[in-house]
Amino acid sequence: MATYRKNPHSEGEPGDEPGEPANPDCLLTEIDHVAIAVEDLGAAIDFYREAFGAIVEHREVVHPDGVEEALLRVADSYIQLLTPTRDDSPVARYLERKGEGLHHVGYRVEDCAAAIDAYRAAGGRPIDEVPRPGSRNTTVAFLHPKTSFGTLIELVEEAAPDVGH
Amino acid sequence: MATYRKNPHSEGEPGDEPGEPANPDCLLTEIDHVAIAVEDLGAAIDFYREAFGAIVEHREVVHPDGVEEALLRVADSYIQLLTPTRDDSPVARYLERKGEGLHHVGYRVEDCAAAIDAYRAAGGRPIDEVPRPGSRNTTVAFLHPKTSFGTLIELVEEAAPDVGH
Repeated sequence: MATYRKNPHSEGEPGDEPGEPANPDCLLTEIDHVAIAVEDLGAAIDFYREAFGAIVEHREVVHPDGVEEALLRVADSYIQLLTPTRDDSPVARYLERKGEGLHHVGYRVEDCAAAIDAYRAAGGRPIDEVPRPGSRNTTVAFLHPKTSFGTLIELVEEAAPDVGH
Repeated sequence: MATYRKNPHSEGEPGDEPGEPANPDCLLTEIDHVAIAVEDLGAAIDFYREAFGAIVEHREVVHPDGVEEALLRVADSYIQLLTPTRDDSPVARYLERKGEGLHHVGYRVEDCAAAIDAYRAAGGRPIDEVPRPGSRNTTVAFLHPKTSFGTLIELVEEAAPDVGH
């Protein structure tokens, strides 16, 4: 968050206080979500509620991606359950090829375009060369797993970032 | 955290304030970590530093699991980079079968044994029937992906939970 840089010379070790990051230079400000591809969204939602008391905070069909997602809040992050809405969507192909399971990880960033640039400068290949609209009015970009040690990464810039109270 | 239950009848919507969860009944209090299996731990660490400014906060060989892990702090969560220390470890077999990528997700809980019970009551099959020591002096239990919609889940109880200041 923007407040992170206000007091870089405070006493004590960085990260001692809640909300104070150990590393203020990290572009990733939060694990926004872990995305899990499932065949039956309703059954998966029921499982997370029954097993852990996790409940749906937001549900949305994302037409460009051909998915329906359910977001279950965990602290300031989400479990994102994903299911395809059409047979030719990337998530449908993923389920066909690999079955249900962890699909990608979303990291929250303050500036999606700047994070794409930093990733590219480090030799990474973005899937989305420029930021595009995501769910929940976010701005997002996916980064290629082949240049991210096998992990599909989504950068997530929130619509109304917390700039400190 | 323990403070979550102290004021369940506060005004406003749950989750309005930072640190106030939308759902105080959720057993999962934080995404503790996303675990990523990699072949070359040093190269992966370099990538996350160069691309995103994420740095290693803790590094540990976990002998019972046959892995070396590096934890990169993101807010109050971690990116856990994992590499096998021996050919017969589960992570070595995972890399052989599936290649590099997302391996499991760790959720922080206040009471690992109670969370195992809740998962079992919902029809889940724990890999660890009772909690066992994890890295960073945590107490952990893995839950079977076959009864978790394809996702290997780790429950993580911290050694010194934050009980409010």
